[in-house]
Amino acid sequence: MRANVNRYWVLRERPTGLVTPAHFDMRESPVREPADGEAVVRVRMLSIDPANRAWMFPSPTYKAPVAPGDTMHGFGVGEIVASRAQGLKVGDIVEGMVGWQDYAVLPVAELAKRDIKGSIEHAMGVLGVTGLTAYFGLVEIGRPKAGETLLVSAAAGAVGSIVAQIGRILGCRVVGIAGGPDKCAWLQRELGLDAAIDYRQGGLRKAVRSACSNGVDVYFDNTGGEALDAALFAMNERGRIVCCGNLSQYNADRPAPGPVGVPGLLVTKRLRMEGFVVLDYFDRREPAERQLKAWLDEGKLKSFETIVEGLENAPRALQQMFEGYNLGKLLVRL
Amino acid sequence: MRANVNRYWVLRERPTGLVTPAHFDMRESPVREPADGEAVVRVRMLSIDPANRAWMFPSPTYKAPVAPGDTMHGFGVGEIVASRAQGLKVGDIVEGMVGWQDYAVLPVAELAKRDIKGSIEHAMGVLGVTGLTAYFGLVEIGRPKAGETLLVSAAAGAVGSIVAQIGRILGCRVVGIAGGPDKCAWLQRELGLDAAIDYRQGGLRKAVRSACSNGVDVYFDNTGGEALDAALFAMNERGRIVCCGNLSQYNADRPAPGPVGVPGLLVTKRLRMEGFVVLDYFDRREPAERQLKAWLDEGKLKSFETIVEGLENAPRALQQMFEGYNLGKLLVRL
Repeated sequence: MRANVNRYWVLRERPTGLVTPAHFDMRESPVREPADGEAVVRVRMLSIDPANRAWMFPSPTYKAPVAPGDTMHGFGVGEIVASRAQGLKVGDIVEGMVGWQDYAVLPVAELAKRDIKGSIEHAMGVLGVTGLTAYFGLVEIGRPKAGETLLVSAAAGAVGSIVAQIGRILGCRVVGIAGGPDKCAWLQRELGLDAAIDYRQGGLRKAVRSACSNGVDVYFDNTGGEALDAALFAMNERGRIVCCGNLSQYNADRPAPGPVGVPGLLVTKRLRMEGFVVLDYFDRREPAERQLKAWLDEGKLKSFETIVEGLENAPRALQQMFEGYNLGKLLVRL
Repeated sequence: MRANVNRYWVLRERPTGLVTPAHFDMRESPVREPADGEAVVRVRMLSIDPANRAWMFPSPTYKAPVAPGDTMHGFGVGEIVASRAQGLKVGDIVEGMVGWQDYAVLPVAELAKRDIKGSIEHAMGVLGVTGLTAYFGLVEIGRPKAGETLLVSAAAGAVGSIVAQIGRILGCRVVGIAGGPDKCAWLQRELGLDAAIDYRQGGLRKAVRSACSNGVDVYFDNTGGEALDAALFAMNERGRIVCCGNLSQYNADRPAPGPVGVPGLLVTKRLRMEGFVVLDYFDRREPAERQLKAWLDEGKLKSFETIVEGLENAPRALQQMFEGYNLGKLLVRL
């Protein structure tokens, strides 16, 4: 292997509010040789997710936090360019926590081989972790029944846009919450949602009640905050709240108070509120991927990606995601 | 039937803070004759519960609210003294929402016949709705496994004291939260709890972490508020929070903000938080009662009641419950 140069983004300091490119430094160093059991991945595509910001909190989430001085963590797909790891050979496509860099040198246990038949974008979106998050969260935790009302926050985002479509496929009435009239129009036009609510208009409790006139049976929560508050008041008895993310709070200066309906409304309405992390479902990944692929092939499920070119633009892409830039999955192509 | 006089407590005005006797008026009127399908119940025992206060909120909970001018709602046990209802005869013991009064005239559908072999106190407590609430909430929603840590708030109260004991029977390490050193000593001495935390000492997050050194697997929440906040931070991955009541908030002037750990900690720790109302489990009441009775007969489960004498003292009893007066079940004997 030639001694390629690796460019990598280091977290300069923990953001206290909105994450911006000023919180990162780009550095360079030669790609190190893989040790026994390791492989070198040429990163091709990075997944930009709200969780990236949550990993910057000082306290651990479901994984260790990113500390100042660390290479920024990031999930991605790449190609093996050198290997001393059994089962991985040059040319193999793998995914894993490769980080925001051109080359990742990782032990084999941290890389999963992917057999990518279609586009790499799909493999990172609807047929990857994003699609599985939507699928398992909605199907296993939300357990929607045909005819029920499904409410989804951040419905124009990566996970939300898939959740909303699966809800339609399963026969639900689907209402999405998103930021701005353009996204709301897109949700109804492109995803076929029954109604869309622009949270920037305010008055979310009333808006949710009005758009969900039969109440909400399943709320898929990507945001926490005001959307969760409004959903709680609109939930029907025995409703389910799928806690997938807390997008509204990741860039908050200080922790916001929790929703006033907790725990009172959980008791009186017999609600179930449940968090999950998609990694826990990976032993059942294959059948779920097959189902998503089938829906995609049948044209029932559409995939939407917003692609930013160049590793150098990863920090800006992350900031822009929180500013509402992307429709569907946000990816950085290297 | 002689035209007996019925004394009944009417809600004078909705309390905005602590409920006191000043919120009620006692009135008298002759007992009316039962219509076809109705029976007259001589009320013998009233159950005084935190829920009584929640029913005074203007918005419905799991039942219609008590409005000013209404006879105060209350669950109780009594004896049929006149009947024009099929299946109910004079002398039968029944339970139902009899209200705070000497005599209730109710349709047969609102009364359930009870075959009370032991004490009426047990029938109102550990072998009644209270015991079933503890049983179904803990077993069906909390699903504790032997060796796990169970945390219970209001652990010296009616439901909490039974939950704590069932937790011990099922092989859990049980930690209780209660108000004051006397109750905490009682929890360890009489209920055999592994540890007890006096929430009045403050610093509840630290106290819970310290008493639950292996983290909390199941939290049975009778209170909401600070106890729920502290529990969320101490929960282990895949922990379960049983939402049974919101005692800390029933007398609040205004709604308190919700717990800051919701929804963030629910996601990262994959927690399930679920509310319930025991009425939903009444179709499986019998086997649960048999189990509770067996534990009681074997001496594994103890029943604790605090009994206040006289209908005239019902409002004061309710106030005192919120001031921490009772150990175990609080009852008013007529």
